[in-house]
Amino acid sequence: MEEIKHYLSTHEDTEMHPSEIAKLLKELSDDEFSEAIKFVPKDLVGDVALALPDRYFEDVVENLSVDDLSYAVTELESDDQLEFMQELEDVDEKVAAEVFKKLDEEDKEEIETLQKYDEDEAGAYMQLEVFTSYEDEVVQDVIKRFARLRKENELENVQNLFIVDRRDKLLYTVGLDELLIFDFTKTIKENIVSSEDSFEPKIARDNEDIKEVVHYFEEYDLSVMPVVDGDGTLLGRITSDDIYDIINEHATEQMYHLAGVDDDAEEDEDVLKAGRKRASWLGVNLLTAIAASFVIGMFEQTLQSLVALAILMPIVASMGGNAGTQTLTVVVRQLALGDISNGDALRILKKEIFIALMNGLIFAIVMGMIAWVWFDISMLGLVIGLSMIINLFMAGFFGAVVPLGLKMLKIDPAIGSTVILTTVTDVVGFFSFLGLATYILL
Amino acid sequence: MEEIKHYLSTHEDTEMHPSEIAKLLKELSDDEFSEAIKFVPKDLVGDVALALPDRYFEDVVENLSVDDLSYAVTELESDDQLEFMQELEDVDEKVAAEVFKKLDEEDKEEIETLQKYDEDEAGAYMQLEVFTSYEDEVVQDVIKRFARLRKENELENVQNLFIVDRRDKLLYTVGLDELLIFDFTKTIKENIVSSEDSFEPKIARDNEDIKEVVHYFEEYDLSVMPVVDGDGTLLGRITSDDIYDIINEHATEQMYHLAGVDDDAEEDEDVLKAGRKRASWLGVNLLTAIAASFVIGMFEQTLQSLVALAILMPIVASMGGNAGTQTLTVVVRQLALGDISNGDALRILKKEIFIALMNGLIFAIVMGMIAWVWFDISMLGLVIGLSMIINLFMAGFFGAVVPLGLKMLKIDPAIGSTVILTTVTDVVGFFSFLGLATYILL
Repeated sequence: MEEIKHYLSTHEDTEMHPSEIAKLLKELSDDEFSEAIKFVPKDLVGDVALALPDRYFEDVVENLSVDDLSYAVTELESDDQLEFMQELEDVDEKVAAEVFKKLDEEDKEEIETLQKYDEDEAGAYMQLEVFTSYEDEVVQDVIKRFARLRKENELENVQNLFIVDRRDKLLYTVGLDELLIFDFTKTIKENIVSSEDSFEPKIARDNEDIKEVVHYFEEYDLSVMPVVDGDGTLLGRITSDDIYDIINEHATEQMYHLAGVDDDAEEDEDVLKAGRKRASWLGVNLLTAIAASFVIGMFEQTLQSLVALAILMPIVASMGGNAGTQTLTVVVRQLALGDISNGDALRILKKEIFIALMNGLIFAIVMGMIAWVWFDISMLGLVIGLSMIINLFMAGFFGAVVPLGLKMLKIDPAIGSTVILTTVTDVVGFFSFLGLATYILL
Repeated sequence: MEEIKHYLSTHEDTEMHPSEIAKLLKELSDDEFSEAIKFVPKDLVGDVALALPDRYFEDVVENLSVDDLSYAVTELESDDQLEFMQELEDVDEKVAAEVFKKLDEEDKEEIETLQKYDEDEAGAYMQLEVFTSYEDEVVQDVIKRFARLRKENELENVQNLFIVDRRDKLLYTVGLDELLIFDFTKTIKENIVSSEDSFEPKIARDNEDIKEVVHYFEEYDLSVMPVVDGDGTLLGRITSDDIYDIINEHATEQMYHLAGVDDDAEEDEDVLKAGRKRASWLGVNLLTAIAASFVIGMFEQTLQSLVALAILMPIVASMGGNAGTQTLTVVVRQLALGDISNGDALRILKKEIFIALMNGLIFAIVMGMIAWVWFDISMLGLVIGLSMIINLFMAGFFGAVVPLGLKMLKIDPAIGSTVILTTVTDVVGFFSFLGLATYILL
């Protein structure tokens, strides 16, 4: 703790990065954290708060004054300003309003611009700070202006110069590697005309689905992309660090959805929120489980006459559930990664049915033998073997069809498909096993 | 199909990006694909092949000559060369050897350098093409050299100039945005000394865990990082597009591991491979299921005297399995994202136990009432309620402890934790329910 205070108070010399500070803070107890956050250099508080897991945000807010908080916002880039203000609102709307009031007009406007966008729109992720010039500017003047802006800390992490017309319509993108070899005494336009390179910008539309934008970055190996509105007016840019975060968030979302967990609730400091969200999913699963029990109830007589059936019956359902989860996970993930193209559904289905039948057969034989030996009833082996094939087939079939179908209906394949699948494998598992037993054994 | 051929054969004018070509090819049938791949411009074949999902690689190899393939390799950047050669070896070792023989010495050497690294080492992902200079070079000479290299297509996507000493030891990293505002008539060294900025490079070691390197990129918002060996000699660089791929791959790996699927096998064209890998996981699960059945078998007498128990018993196990999967997924993912720090285990455990007990209580009451009404035995409600609490508690406890423990033992928490957890929730589910039933009801 003392060590951290020392570190932080000597920041001027050591130039610690916000994420390093966040890493140190994370190791502290709650009390120590409340103390230490006050020693974080005021111009870095914003970045540090955003680098910490969400649950710390409340502690940050509680231990800093409104003045400190609004200064922290001022020091952030526009997309981070928005994120900071959103988290602040989640924690305390009143404080958020006070902080917002203290910001200067430009910051307020920028935050309001970004706030208009939905979470899944590209516009929500852009930084409004961009380095632009007109095509009739002479390169050396542009560079002089750039040097000044950099000195004033107005521009960070610049990789491109965006060329716009007088109404801010984006015309070209010039990489700094291209700019560097331009003739500095000529205008941008003259350089572009005489170059063999293409300066046509790869653009993202502000209301485009952010998932699509991420795909562009991945496919075209981009590290920055300009964002324009419907008229082609340059609004801002999205950079690689945003893309890292979004890729991670989407993967987390997907894993959580498959497991019936809500990503926002889990990141909240309030454990009750996460608990309630999980409960609602468990509630749906309870209905599934009760449905399966009803199926078992239909065979009460059969169970009574042969208790071995009760002992073995969870095996079939469990194997179906596991095989189905395998298929489901692969299909959901490949859909998200764009590895499954439009004409691909049939190929996936064939693959999954092939694997399902192959593994169904293997485990039918294995489990059939085990059941036969265990209870010394050969026909019991036949029953469990047949129902194993049926259930693994259904697991493979529905594990593929459910997400593919949801995707076609434009519903997120990760949400809900697990429940549908488990219902199928439980109901089919119990029904086929006990049904075949009733028919063959009794 | 005709349209695609037309597109491809008129490539010179349209300048299609490899990933656009890949997207078109993916929509084709197998026969059409074999035909169309021959029309892809030879200098783009390598990039197109790598942009396609892995299962297409065999078709690419079968439809192109050894000459075409080795020309394709020549046109790739070094990290892509390695990837291409590795995929080629997987498909056909003989062809791979022939292709390799045809490469020039420099390409051969580069591929061999990269091949030395393990899949999880940073070195395996680096490009060897970097833009370097000595500190006593005058900036304008460096830029002239840069212009020449760019014209010769030797350098792509440059964002930094790396300053090395005569023995290639990395001294500084200069961003192109910094280089642009340097005094071009002075040497690099003079510029660096007179600047207020820091040019100390953030470096990755070649044998460093690639996961750590990805964390650097994420935390420090980097878009490129130099890679050095143990002596500090500059070897290459890793860029943001590599990071996108790696983040995606790791997330896929994690999801697949949780579901008992092997990521390499699933991407292979050979469906048998994926099927076999899945079968081995299902085999482990079968042992788990049989263990659970043994537990049920211990209560044969109890089941015989009250068939309602057989009907209800899967509910407790199923709810435990689902609750446990929720906890497990959240803990595994947060561990991977670095959201759980060293001192955090206790906090996570407390959170999970709290949620487990809360939801255990809710579903104990709900299911207790349902069981009571359904079978008109009040004590049956008590039994299922108690065992629900016990099993959901165990699910939450082990769902958190298993991945945290595996992580401490430096074992990937995503591998194996699902099986351990399911064993716990199945065995505890059946044992607590049937045990309590024996004790209370009989």
